[in-house]
Amino acid sequence: MSETARRKQAVAAARKAGVDALLITHLPDVRWLCGFTGSNAAIMLPVDQRLRPILVTDGRYTGQARAEARGVKVVIAPKSAAIAACEWMAKSGIRRCGFDEQNTTVAALKQMQAAIPATLRRKIFQPVGPLVSTLRWVKDAAEIARMRAAAALGCELFDSIFEHIVPGATETQVALALEYKARLAGATEMSFPSIVASGPRSALPHGRASAAKLPRRGFVTLDFGVVLDGYCSDMTRTVHLGRATADEQRVYEAVLEAQEAGVAAVRAGVTGGDVDEAARSVLRRARLDKWFTHSTGHGVGLEIHEGPRLAAKQTQKLEAGMIVTIEPGLYLPGRFGVRIEDMVLVTKTGAEILTPSTKAWIEL
Amino acid sequence: MSETARRKQAVAAARKAGVDALLITHLPDVRWLCGFTGSNAAIMLPVDQRLRPILVTDGRYTGQARAEARGVKVVIAPKSAAIAACEWMAKSGIRRCGFDEQNTTVAALKQMQAAIPATLRRKIFQPVGPLVSTLRWVKDAAEIARMRAAAALGCELFDSIFEHIVPGATETQVALALEYKARLAGATEMSFPSIVASGPRSALPHGRASAAKLPRRGFVTLDFGVVLDGYCSDMTRTVHLGRATADEQRVYEAVLEAQEAGVAAVRAGVTGGDVDEAARSVLRRARLDKWFTHSTGHGVGLEIHEGPRLAAKQTQKLEAGMIVTIEPGLYLPGRFGVRIEDMVLVTKTGAEILTPSTKAWIEL
Repeated sequence: MSETARRKQAVAAARKAGVDALLITHLPDVRWLCGFTGSNAAIMLPVDQRLRPILVTDGRYTGQARAEARGVKVVIAPKSAAIAACEWMAKSGIRRCGFDEQNTTVAALKQMQAAIPATLRRKIFQPVGPLVSTLRWVKDAAEIARMRAAAALGCELFDSIFEHIVPGATETQVALALEYKARLAGATEMSFPSIVASGPRSALPHGRASAAKLPRRGFVTLDFGVVLDGYCSDMTRTVHLGRATADEQRVYEAVLEAQEAGVAAVRAGVTGGDVDEAARSVLRRARLDKWFTHSTGHGVGLEIHEGPRLAAKQTQKLEAGMIVTIEPGLYLPGRFGVRIEDMVLVTKTGAEILTPSTKAWIEL
Repeated sequence: MSETARRKQAVAAARKAGVDALLITHLPDVRWLCGFTGSNAAIMLPVDQRLRPILVTDGRYTGQARAEARGVKVVIAPKSAAIAACEWMAKSGIRRCGFDEQNTTVAALKQMQAAIPATLRRKIFQPVGPLVSTLRWVKDAAEIARMRAAAALGCELFDSIFEHIVPGATETQVALALEYKARLAGATEMSFPSIVASGPRSALPHGRASAAKLPRRGFVTLDFGVVLDGYCSDMTRTVHLGRATADEQRVYEAVLEAQEAGVAAVRAGVTGGDVDEAARSVLRRARLDKWFTHSTGHGVGLEIHEGPRLAAKQTQKLEAGMIVTIEPGLYLPGRFGVRIEDMVLVTKTGAEILTPSTKAWIEL
């Protein structure tokens, strides 16, 4: 699907929301709609096809905007991009403009209103929620190809990191080795601060790599992702240093079983709640679910955390083309923790795992 | 100055703004006021000293909040921290609560209002701007010590990077070498994506390190910073590979003269506009000012970009204890560019340079 098709979807959503145009300022949405990757941008997308959408940015990005942006008129403005877009709108006859109230500050809305003549100001801006972000949940073929590449790089990094996972190395050294390889392989950055959580720290769901040294015996959880060509990967594996206890093995097996049940539950038409329950019920049967303290997964794409949410009671149905994580974990405070996470592509009949690195028990 | 003294300043500012309490959700402000570094937090700070301020966060951070937060009551809530703080406020008799409209979304304000009984809702939230962020512009002794350490680490990195600046190496390789050393030395992350801009790319003011190879002859601009103990450093140096042309030398000398004039203009009581003009006028006299396309500097601290702005017509006066960058540059599109940047501490009588790495011409 080209940016043209994406803009058509956005226009249809705008029409359905009862507005004449959408103001888009959330940068991942801007990139998705026209390809521009600069750090200051606003798109005004009119429903009326006779009006050409505009992309506003500033003078630092003149060349880049003309090179990257497709299907929009590039406008260079010295002031705030959103305000310049609103001034253009006021002149173009648009009388109801949808904006994403979850990504617009109170101060920005006030400035947007001030850019509109007083006679029109009162009702022109309509909060319509994250319309475009929601459209991004379902990936098109070009996006799936990029997500595959990002996920594959993640697996390559995991598969080559074992030599660094040795007792006495710090968590930070392991993270740095991952990140260095990622950048040399073309990743522009990591999707989020890498988690390397070892020994008792593996019981922290968000155990960002620290100066702690890897123990002679114990789990090491690695949760990391790369940004490749704009798209994020996300995966988790937990390996064990030295001999494991029976308890540790039992918890690992339970998480693995829950994770595989979660993956098996994925297909177009089931809800986020269904998938969460599929994973959670495995742990409930094993009487371990009280240690599974977060939700089962989330969408991923241009942003590391997108919709849909795979969590208890979520009624949002999965659709073919969504890419979600399946990442149950168990965390026994002060003792140890295990998490296993894949990125999967939702299909009509099931799920395709994009992160095929082994999930079998690894003892180093 | 302790967090207690900082909260006193914030209470005084709140009283001056005519509100009974401040809701603080911007994370650097939260950290500054109580020491908590988690990623989900809100502080409700009442003006009435008999009411103890509360810090709200979620269950992931129970232990961390109790360990880090000073002088506030820790409240753990499963929902949004800001909403839980508002519910607490409604029960405590507070009737006018200031919030930072530049860091609050339209959707968040609506949820905050929904947390207040309908009879009180209409006028309880007053936009007061970034009151606490503005207080953070002036650093206390503990902060200055941390900023010194961060700036010193930046200089150490620059002083040890020359072996990596060789023709044929990629900009990314140079950036990675810097970043790897930074992390091994204790930096938690970089302040911003490192700029390594070589040859014609040095003409891009924001030339993030790319796959471009360093040329046999030409400038290499390095603009980078580390985050150490929460505080950001920021510095820029431009070095030359191979023999320079007379033009290149002339531009370098002009930027250096402008940068030194900017530093010399800094002292408590002068305005941001004065400092900008001191640097800019040097380039104007050299008839080069049309290539100086950005402002002269900005405050830095817990965030990489803070106030005050050092830019044309800024009337904000500098105060002792502020830490600002002085970073003029010249950018000749398609040809080359030069930028030189120090972090300086504003004192009553002048400026103390925190980034003493040499600014003399370096030919590698």
